[in-house]
Parts: sequence; C-alpha cells; structure tokens
Amino acid sequence: MMEKLFIIKIGGNVVDDAVALESFLKKFAAIEGTKILVHGGGKIATAIGRQLGIEPNYINGRRITDAATIDLVTMVYGGLINKQIVAALQSMHCNAIGLTGADANIILANKRPAKEIDYGFVGDIKNEKVGAESLTVFLNNGLVPVIAPLTHDGNGQLLNTNADTIASTLAVALSKLYDARLIYCFEKKGVLENVDDETSVITLINKEKYQQLLDDKKLADGILPKIENAFAAIDSGVNEVLIGDANDLLQNITENTIGTLIKP
Amino acid sequence: MMEKLFIIKIGGNVVDDAVALESFLKKFAAIEGTKILVHGGGKIATAIGRQLGIEPNYINGRRITDAATIDLVTMVYGGLINKQIVAALQSMHCNAIGLTGADANIILANKRPAKEIDYGFVGDIKNEKVGAESLTVFLNNGLVPVIAPLTHDGNGQLLNTNADTIASTLAVALSKLYDARLIYCFEKKGVLENVDDETSVITLINKEKYQQLLDDKKLADGILPKIENAFAAIDSGVNEVLIGDANDLLQNITENTIGTLIKP
Repeated sequence: MMEKLFIIKIGGNVVDDAVALESFLKKFAAIEGTKILVHGGGKIATAIGRQLGIEPNYINGRRITDAATIDLVTMVYGGLINKQIVAALQSMHCNAIGLTGADANIILANKRPAKEIDYGFVGDIKNEKVGAESLTVFLNNGLVPVIAPLTHDGNGQLLNTNADTIASTLAVALSKLYDARLIYCFEKKGVLENVDDETSVITLINKEKYQQLLDDKKLADGILPKIENAFAAIDSGVNEVLIGDANDLLQNITENTIGTLIKP
Repeated sequence: MMEKLFIIKIGGNVVDDAVALESFLKKFAAIEGTKILVHGGGKIATAIGRQLGIEPNYINGRRITDAATIDLVTMVYGGLINKQIVAALQSMHCNAIGLTGADANIILANKRPAKEIDYGFVGDIKNEKVGAESLTVFLNNGLVPVIAPLTHDGNGQLLNTNADTIASTLAVALSKLYDARLIYCFEKKGVLENVDDETSVITLINKEKYQQLLDDKKLADGILPKIENAFAAIDSGVNEVLIGDANDLLQNITENTIGTLIKP
C-alpha cells in the first residue's frame, strides 16, 4: 500500500486573512504524515502593486502578467507570503520549505502562447514537467514543501501560474509514488446544490453527478474550473479530491466526512 | 579526505548590476563540485521601499529593521532577488534551490537584544544553530542552495541577517562534513595594502600579517568585519577564506591564485 500524501491548496481568502491563516496553519501543521501546501496569491499583491504604480491590467476581463507584474508577484507570492507561511509553520514544529517551481526545478512550464490575448508571463504546466524526484527527496527527509504559484520556463524566466493547477499537477505527478489526496480549500463549505444555501453541500460528486450538475447548469463560474481540475487529476491517477472550507476540512482530514468528495 | 565545498558570498555590488550578476552566475554555474551561494541585499530594496513609502531608518548611523522593513526585505531579498538568481541558474543547468534561514529551518537566529540601539528585526546567529543536516540532504542530492540574508527566530518571526555572517556561519557548520572553502566576493581585487591602489593586493594574510595590518591601521572600515569573520571561521574549522573580485575569483577558483587568501 502506498503512503498517503495530502496536497492541500489554499487561496487568497485564507492568505489575506491573518486570523484565518493562522488557524489554518495550526491545523495543517497538526496533520500527521506526508503533506504539501500550495498557496495562491491574495489581494495583498494588488495592494502593494498599486503603491508601486503597477495597476492591474485586464484584457477582455483576463488579468495580464506584464514585466512589472511578474516582478511584483515574485516578490509578494514567492517572498512575502511564502516565507511568512514557512516561518509560521516552523514555529508550529512543522519543517516547512518554501519553493517556487524554479527551486530545484520542481515545476517547469511553457509561457502561454499569445493568441487572441497575450497573457504575458503566465505559465502552463504539464504533468510530466514536475520534478517528482526532488519533491520525494524533501518528503522522505521530513520536509513539508510550501509552494508559491510561480513556475519557470527553464530559460531564466519566472512565470505566474494558477495555484489550483499547480496543486492538481503535483497530485498527478506524485500519484505514481503516493496515495495522493488533493484538497482544495475555498470560501464555501463545499460544492453547493444551491449557491445561496451554505447547507446544501453536495457530499459526493462522481462523473454521473457531475454531468447532471452541468446539464442542470448548477455549477457557478468559480467552482467549475476546480471540478474540471479535480476530474483531470482523477483521470490521471489521483484517488480522490476533496473541496470545502479550509478549517472544516482540516479538522478531520483523514475521515473525509466534510465538504464535497470527488471520485470517479 | 573530505569533499570540497565552496561557499561563495556576493554582495549588493553584484546583485544590483544585471550584467555583472549574469557574468558571475555563469562562472558560478560552471564550478564543478559542491557549492552554496549566499547573496546580499542590494540597493533595489531601498528603491522599492522608497516607492512604498518606507524610508531607510538610521540610528547613530546604523540601519534599523522595523516591521515595514522586514516585510520589504522578505519580499525583495527572499522573493525577487533570490528567485531571479535561482531561475537564472536553472537556465545554466545548475540545479539551484532558493532558501531563507526559515526554510527547512536551516538558520535559526536570536533577535538582537535592544541595548543602546534597538536594531529591530535583526538576527544574530550561532554556528550550532545551522541545520547542517538539511543542507547536506540538498548537497547530496545535487542541489545548489542559494541563500538570502534572512533567518528566523523559531517563533514565526523572520529576521534580517548579515550575508557575510551567514556565509561564515554556514562554512563553520559544514566544515565538520566538508573541506569548506569560504569565498567573499566584493568590489575590490582583494585586501589592498594601499586602498587607492588596486594593484596592491595582499596575496596572503595570516594571523601575524593581520596583526601587523591592524597595528599599521591599514585596514579600511569596510574590509575589517570581513577579515574578522574570516579569522573567526578559520578558528572554528574552516580551512581558508578567499577575498576578492567576484569575476576574478571564480575564473580560477580551484587554484586560489587571485585575490587575498586568509589562512591561519
């Protein structure tokens, strides 16, 4: 039987809220066994960027990562947020190591080709470009990787990369070596039947249920990419994906009784 | 015979100059064998800080690291500079991994006690607080640590820490496991007999010569702490320390024929 590996992703709603973050990190630190944390960006990058005269740049509603912005997110995601999380986890006796995809070459990406929109310095990643070997060295030595949403192109360029995608890609790459469990924390208790009713959590989504939810147009824009990522991960070897509220999920992570479980 | 380990420190003069930095990194990447890079801060932190309204704060001529400044240097040293160096080294097929002292708990420090001056979030380090075991895991797996001038106190606080001291402390801690060579790169060709004459490099400083230079008051303020650090490292097990120009030194690192060699 393969060893269990929890790959847990938190987004801006946790990162931006000092109280929620500390509460989450305490629970994360307490998880026994092998684990990886992937964190998103948060609004602090936008706030610091504004002070530096870097206004968010959108084309057709999609955020563009220009040269100033990739420097900004390298500072804020790879430096400030990542290292503050690492230092906090160390104080909780969790031997964290903060990484971007460039570090130890763990995630190589391709700069997204400019088609209708030039997204700038944004990285698209593939399962086979994950340095699973280096990650395994860290995990085998009791280190807990804390991964910022940044990758590199192998030619010296850092790239802004979606944290959900990083988490699912890592889960797939490591599912050959571990019983990989992917956990997406977000601001809701789980996937909701009725987006206005927090108690309407769908406890299990299999492919049949997924198709039904799609047909009934019940999935909000925000949750759809997460479920797509989840099924892509499952199709590539990840056993199950759990989606829900950060604090709830980690309360009882080995039981999987809270949130939405996604299985084939 | 123990394996050779080069611990090379570069300062702001290299970090701030894109051309000098790239030239240095190419030579660094080409060094065969086991190596660690420690980098200093550079003026870019001051420039970014100014844009963010963080003015350098001095008391009696000593820079103070207040709460805003530790966040600033965490972003700039731990994020921007560190990750740009890592991505550049990766493009040169050097498997770099960027770290602060908090990562993998490699350098634990004490916040400097406030006496006449409260330096703020500044860390003082001790040889015995280096996580040599984690560093050895990285080195044994072909990874090249790139270390930012930041440590942590174990209670969740990051601390601004002198890069020269980090380099000498790492050299001492690792000298039990490696034939550790400490190399300080700075803006001169070496320690100069006459500070105005670049050709007056002193090729060898032993303790006798050091005392003589002190007696003759020939050591400029800038070089004195470096030589003190160097002899402290040598007294604690480091075989030799080399001081000189980044590009010169790395040209011929295994020969030690350029710059100033410091030996007992």
